[in-house]
Amino acid sequence: MAYSQNKAVAITVCWLILYLTIAEGKYYPTWESLDARPLPSWYDEAKIGIFIHWGVFSVPSYGSEWFWYAWKGNPPAQDVIEFMKQNYPPNFTYGDFASMYTTEFFNPDQWADLFNASGARYVVMTSKHHEGFTNWPSSHSFNWNSMAVGPKKDLVGMLADSIRNRTNIRFGLYHSLFEWFNPLLLEDYANSFTTDLFSSGKSMPELYEIVNQYKPEIVWSDGDWYGPAEYWKSQEFLAWLYNDSPVKDTVVTNDRWGWGCTCHHGGYFTCSDRYNPGTLQTRKWENAFTIDKYSWGYVRNSPLENYLTMDNITQIIAETISCGGNILINVGPTKDGMIDPILEERLRQMGDWLRVNGEAIYETTPWVYQNDSYTPNVWYTSKKDGFRTKVYAIVLEWPETLTLYLAYTTPTRATTVTLLGYSSLIEWRLPASHSSGIELLMPVIPLNMMPCQWAWVFLLENLL
Amino acid sequence: MAYSQNKAVAITVCWLILYLTIAEGKYYPTWESLDARPLPSWYDEAKIGIFIHWGVFSVPSYGSEWFWYAWKGNPPAQDVIEFMKQNYPPNFTYGDFASMYTTEFFNPDQWADLFNASGARYVVMTSKHHEGFTNWPSSHSFNWNSMAVGPKKDLVGMLADSIRNRTNIRFGLYHSLFEWFNPLLLEDYANSFTTDLFSSGKSMPELYEIVNQYKPEIVWSDGDWYGPAEYWKSQEFLAWLYNDSPVKDTVVTNDRWGWGCTCHHGGYFTCSDRYNPGTLQTRKWENAFTIDKYSWGYVRNSPLENYLTMDNITQIIAETISCGGNILINVGPTKDGMIDPILEERLRQMGDWLRVNGEAIYETTPWVYQNDSYTPNVWYTSKKDGFRTKVYAIVLEWPETLTLYLAYTTPTRATTVTLLGYSSLIEWRLPASHSSGIELLMPVIPLNMMPCQWAWVFLLENLL
Amino acid sequence: MAYSQNKAVAITVCWLILYLTIAEGKYYPTWESLDARPLPSWYDEAKIGIFIHWGVFSVPSYGSEWFWYAWKGNPPAQDVIEFMKQNYPPNFTYGDFASMYTTEFFNPDQWADLFNASGARYVVMTSKHHEGFTNWPSSHSFNWNSMAVGPKKDLVGMLADSIRNRTNIRFGLYHSLFEWFNPLLLEDYANSFTTDLFSSGKSMPELYEIVNQYKPEIVWSDGDWYGPAEYWKSQEFLAWLYNDSPVKDTVVTNDRWGWGCTCHHGGYFTCSDRYNPGTLQTRKWENAFTIDKYSWGYVRNSPLENYLTMDNITQIIAETISCGGNILINVGPTKDGMIDPILEERLRQMGDWLRVNGEAIYETTPWVYQNDSYTPNVWYTSKKDGFRTKVYAIVLEWPETLTLYLAYTTPTRATTVTLLGYSSLIEWRLPASHSSGIELLMPVIPLNMMPCQWAWVFLLENLL
Amino acid sequence: MAYSQNKAVAITVCWLILYLTIAEGKYYPTWESLDARPLPSWYDEAKIGIFIHWGVFSVPSYGSEWFWYAWKGNPPAQDVIEFMKQNYPPNFTYGDFASMYTTEFFNPDQWADLFNASGARYVVMTSKHHEGFTNWPSSHSFNWNSMAVGPKKDLVGMLADSIRNRTNIRFGLYHSLFEWFNPLLLEDYANSFTTDLFSSGKSMPELYEIVNQYKPEIVWSDGDWYGPAEYWKSQEFLAWLYNDSPVKDTVVTNDRWGWGCTCHHGGYFTCSDRYNPGTLQTRKWENAFTIDKYSWGYVRNSPLENYLTMDNITQIIAETISCGGNILINVGPTKDGMIDPILEERLRQMGDWLRVNGEAIYETTPWVYQNDSYTPNVWYTSKKDGFRTKVYAIVLEWPETLTLYLAYTTPTRATTVTLLGYSSLIEWRLPASHSSGIELLMPVIPLNMMPCQWAWVFLLENLL
Repeated sequence: MAYSQNKAVAITVCWLILYLTIAEGKYYPTWESLDARPLPSWYDEAKIGIFIHWGVFSVPSYGSEWFWYAWKGNPPAQDVIEFMKQNYPPNFTYGDFASMYTTEFFNPDQWADLFNASGARYVVMTSKHHEGFTNWPSSHSFNWNSMAVGPKKDLVGMLADSIRNRTNIRFGLYHSLFEWFNPLLLEDYANSFTTDLFSSGKSMPELYEIVNQYKPEIVWSDGDWYGPAEYWKSQEFLAWLYNDSPVKDTVVTNDRWGWGCTCHHGGYFTCSDRYNPGTLQTRKWENAFTIDKYSWGYVRNSPLENYLTMDNITQIIAETISCGGNILINVGPTKDGMIDPILEERLRQMGDWLRVNGEAIYETTPWVYQNDSYTPNVWYTSKKDGFRTKVYAIVLEWPETLTLYLAYTTPTRATTVTLLGYSSLIEWRLPASHSSGIELLMPVIPLNMMPCQWAWVFLLENLL
Repeated sequence: MAYSQNKAVAITVCWLILYLTIAEGKYYPTWESLDARPLPSWYDEAKIGIFIHWGVFSVPSYGSEWFWYAWKGNPPAQDVIEFMKQNYPPNFTYGDFASMYTTEFFNPDQWADLFNASGARYVVMTSKHHEGFTNWPSSHSFNWNSMAVGPKKDLVGMLADSIRNRTNIRFGLYHSLFEWFNPLLLEDYANSFTTDLFSSGKSMPELYEIVNQYKPEIVWSDGDWYGPAEYWKSQEFLAWLYNDSPVKDTVVTNDRWGWGCTCHHGGYFTCSDRYNPGTLQTRKWENAFTIDKYSWGYVRNSPLENYLTMDNITQIIAETISCGGNILINVGPTKDGMIDPILEERLRQMGDWLRVNGEAIYETTPWVYQNDSYTPNVWYTSKKDGFRTKVYAIVLEWPETLTLYLAYTTPTRATTVTLLGYSSLIEWRLPASHSSGIELLMPVIPLNMMPCQWAWVFLLENLL
Repeated sequence: MAYSQNKAVAITVCWLILYLTIAEGKYYPTWESLDARPLPSWYDEAKIGIFIHWGVFSVPSYGSEWFWYAWKGNPPAQDVIEFMKQNYPPNFTYGDFASMYTTEFFNPDQWADLFNASGARYVVMTSKHHEGFTNWPSSHSFNWNSMAVGPKKDLVGMLADSIRNRTNIRFGLYHSLFEWFNPLLLEDYANSFTTDLFSSGKSMPELYEIVNQYKPEIVWSDGDWYGPAEYWKSQEFLAWLYNDSPVKDTVVTNDRWGWGCTCHHGGYFTCSDRYNPGTLQTRKWENAFTIDKYSWGYVRNSPLENYLTMDNITQIIAETISCGGNILINVGPTKDGMIDPILEERLRQMGDWLRVNGEAIYETTPWVYQNDSYTPNVWYTSKKDGFRTKVYAIVLEWPETLTLYLAYTTPTRATTVTLLGYSSLIEWRLPASHSSGIELLMPVIPLNMMPCQWAWVFLLENLL
Repeated sequence: MAYSQNKAVAITVCWLILYLTIAEGKYYPTWESLDARPLPSWYDEAKIGIFIHWGVFSVPSYGSEWFWYAWKGNPPAQDVIEFMKQNYPPNFTYGDFASMYTTEFFNPDQWADLFNASGARYVVMTSKHHEGFTNWPSSHSFNWNSMAVGPKKDLVGMLADSIRNRTNIRFGLYHSLFEWFNPLLLEDYANSFTTDLFSSGKSMPELYEIVNQYKPEIVWSDGDWYGPAEYWKSQEFLAWLYNDSPVKDTVVTNDRWGWGCTCHHGGYFTCSDRYNPGTLQTRKWENAFTIDKYSWGYVRNSPLENYLTMDNITQIIAETISCGGNILINVGPTKDGMIDPILEERLRQMGDWLRVNGEAIYETTPWVYQNDSYTPNVWYTSKKDGFRTKVYAIVLEWPETLTLYLAYTTPTRATTVTLLGYSSLIEWRLPASHSSGIELLMPVIPLNMMPCQWAWVFLLENLL
């Protein structure tokens, strides 16, 4: 049988599976079937999520959440080796940090209220990072979980409850398939994945466990680059997740499920950390980034300059939402259980901004154009408005000139322009020096009447 | 001899002492003589100081720097008792915290640079707080000092060196005469201060030690309320400090030197913590306040709302400087040796503000009026300008109206008004509805041209 | 088919298996086959073994090695709860002890030399006790093993090497099938052992691992009472151990392999802790007992009276060896890695005793009679001597009378009696007041000529 | 005035002081007066004391109680530096050990009972060793005492109470005048003792404090070699101790009171550690020695061979008592508060021995001869018996011959010889081959009738 025949057969089989999938509402453990599942709509509408990286790495809280690997990986980082040498006894191990992961101030209600105030609509928490320490009392991580050592608490369960009891925020869980130093995984690797001691005995049982136990509406998989999806049995898991799990109707997943999956298979795409392509994407995607520019976990000695400013954050929001992505903005709590005031300030400021400008973010869709071709630092979102489209122009820098030219919008007589959070209409005119577009006459607004401090949104209605 | 005669004699003696003092440049260990010493001019000109509260209390970092007293004092604070019960073994003592006072990230050069960036002109650091732990290797505090346990560093010396090497900031030291739980002091107290085991054997030797060793240009005394100045031998110390110490020419002290001294004797007045009288004072004074509203030491679980905003801080600066005070703005470093980013942000923002508006602060004198009688939230400072006086009106809230009325200023034809940090002159007119004063026409300034975000300063020159 | 027929068939099958077993030198995973394996002869000849209980329990070192269970089991021991409350913070966990399991003074060469000096011919060390902590870097006990936390050493490997390099002592390993608090085991239990998450995923893989890695010549199983042998897959393991393991020819096991096995199946019998039946047994057995009468693990606050005296120990040796058992005398090292001097003293004294009297112990067989019917505290062992039998009478108390009557021995003219360690022959006579037996005339020996301090051995040769 | 006249005057003054002293029962702060004080008789009669070395050094418990000096002194001991490097973080300080001085098992009643069982008649405990840490809540050692850190107990007071409540043992205190690293002492030293910051401000106040508070009947001074008695003000202290202190009538002191005092001035002489001159001394003396041959403090890794055997101990007792000394046998408790079983065993064995042989020890006086000139290892003590003298011959090794020749004793017809603890009289005869002395016919004693295991005592009565 010739190649083209093979291909034809394969395509036929694919369509058959797809048909059956749709017909029965059942998913098969193949990428064709799984990739075809429509993303539950809440996720795209939510736009803004908060990422939480918390674990034993929050104890040394030095370098980044990759501390253990930096210390003992290949090659080790000299500064981390020196840090350990200067501050700990020679035989100190990473495991010894666990008892200092005290979380004594962890108040999940306060966290929930803060996340709510930030304007986020979903939260994703590390259930287990590459260190393998589980933030819930896993059955498969004896004496290396948050109930047995350190916190003595079911951190995942406590936060899930608070978020569900106090807010409408959706609760999701990050889970790392791989663990840096688990000897079973190293053995499977040495066996070229002909064995599955680790994936069958540790990683996947835990993943099923957290879905059954905490019903996360996001399963944010990570650590997939260490083996093929077949080794991890990701497709079987996803089929179960979509067909039979307690969250089958609303759950959303990402694309980190094994070699070659990232940016190709699964739910929405994350591609790489801080993914921010700047152009419209064909599949739903997410920009996960972190307020401390250099670490997802809390770092005790990060100076102020390491933290994103609100100018940075509003820019990332504008760029991401305009191009069809969601943002997942990360905070790393301290080992005490606190969210440092600088992070709290950023989240509350984001909330302040979203309370004024959320209309241009939540439940929007990308417009025909993502950013203005003429005026830099202007990004667009849009919303259906009957037959027409409302267009939101997010202006990252207040113009120094008296007018603001937007190249892609074609006004009609009925066109109105408003500045979100400001009462008066904004005057506009057809641009003198351009053949198309619109020219807004920038209003003179006393400082105390300005709707917000960063990234102003002009709403253009009744465009052509 | 009648009372009036007595009084006459006393006054004569006082004048005699004063005369001798001035004549010989020598001070006597009497309040009359000591109080008569002119304050070295640098202090009044500097206006802005930074206070640092750092000690073993930075380890529990809970409640406030009075942690030990809250725990073991009379009566103890139930929440602190509960905190200890929940997190430490029953036999844990305050002394046990000392080994966790690690300061591993303490970088005095970074601190010096940050303080410089904040616009501060002097720094006052706790050499020893009421806990008795010395931040320098004291000869009188065996195994209860920063070289013997915990930091293993001469914290005082390191910071003094960095500040002197890298900046023009003056270096001062806080020193608590009293210690909550020192048994020698308790014994002296029980003996109604007929003995001086503590003051002679511990407290004063240490005070002489730090002056000789670190040459602080401010000796910020505290903990004086536990005994009379005679017990502490404060007057002898001050006479030595002014006559013979290595800092005799430039040193400045405060007023906490024994029962009844505060707000009455010594150098400048501090009166009470966060002293902010709102009216002009006859003697130079200082407003010591702290960015974390509820604690001078770092508190790990202070939420954002506990921290002063820049609106708060600029208001305190305006109120204080207008009334003739200096500010001493406090930060509490962590036990790791870091200044939390939220504090760093406040200090850098204060620096940003002072870089624009410092002209209205440094080296100014109070004006005839301190704040405007008509328009609230306007405070004045002034500077000599030949025969005339430049007046700075610090406006805490940007007016919602188009004009700003200042009641006390009488313009001339030559009067010019400028907004510090803004290039154009500000138009003004004689007020229509008032018989005196001036009316400024508030400029329309695009957001990105605003000189600062909080508390704008109008400079009025060539007033009558 | 009637019962008797069934029985006949069953017996036939048994014999068949036995035949095949012997014919092929292969063992089948059935008790019939496994129980039929002859015990390698070295074990019976060795007689004296040392047991070592070392683990995380050596850190609290309080109560016994069952500390964790006493604290958190059902019901908990009030004194342990109180001990924890008095000495540790409320959230302290058993896992937190692991980092204090420092073993900084562990010198396996010194241990090997001490065990050699004690006269022991084999050593059995806890590879893993019921706590689940592995004293070797197990692949199945992530972050709960001696390489990852605490010692940072392969304790099992280090001791194995030292013993093999420096002595002729055989090295064995204790292994607990069960773990008190492993959630996988609790889950299997809750499922009435219809699942085998724990035995297949944790316990048995580790058991295979230690056999392959350390080649122990004793596999001392324990913790079997928590499930049937079928759950543990003990028979499969033993068949592999006997047929294919690297120690198949010399390995010895005990009888703790699942419900109903103890005292019935496996290798030699241990029946219960401190098993000392006082009568001859039909199968080889072992008396495992511990010098600290109340604990196998080291207990920091055991007073002297808790330790067996040498009188106790020589009595236990005499009783056990006479009845066909071996002794396995236990010491619990400290968490520092030391064997407390009181234990060292006992072991060295045992060595002193065995150097004189070992002839009556090593390689002996029980005699016709185990202890004397007339004179209490006299126990017998024997050795072939050509056609005759040498009989050793171990006398636990030096007689107060001038003669010692032994009821079961029938002298001939050629009979000679010697006291081990003493040069002169012992005179004897036919007893005046008994119709059988022999009467020894107790020698008068100056104190410094006494061969030993406890339990003297008379060797009787050329008896009838 | 010529030298001889000076001398005559001096002698006269001395005698005068001595006369006045005796006449008035008052002591003057001069060695002449102080040295003339008769030693309270209880001390010489008691003979056997127990020394206890306990402190922060019991935490590292490595090397010896001089750990801190070995680590940080001049020159430091490389093995201690290496020990710290291997087991602690670089910034760990000696002060950090204090919080681990937990003493959780300290049961002073058990200690008192054990000391009583040992036969001791006095106990001397370290109130403060050279480290400066006080085992009582000193007013002069802020945060460096047993109530403020570590034990959280008044160790001295607790033991004093138990001993006094449960036994007739006298309670004494060791006190080190000097402290290795106290900066005040180092300053006084640098000033060639022209200042007395340390002795007046720390050391002597504490010494007065413990005498007033705990009323020790022995003040065992140490650490005197660091300055002259005048610096320490020892003579003033002793005069107060003898004249006015609460223990003036019964207190006993030693000779370590300043440069040149040891073996020359004070109370009884200790001369050097483990002082055992082997000849009769003119002044009462004490042999302080320790069961762990190499350390006074507990050492965790001392093997059995480091501990004195009972043969060693009985030999030291015999040698010391015969020559007029007392023994002060030292034990070092653990940081947990235990006396290791090996030490408990030695103390109880000493008690067993003294219960049989104490008659030859307590309340005895040296005999004319101290040890036998002919037979080695025989030491004598004696007691008045009316006009005659009872002589005790302590025989350290049981003779291998049938007779024991004692060279110095001259028997009469009435002479009787007994073996302490044995019922029958011992036969004797005039020696055949010697012109003087006595020959004992060694009894034949069955092992179980021997009165003790080590060092037998023959009592000779009615000698010439």
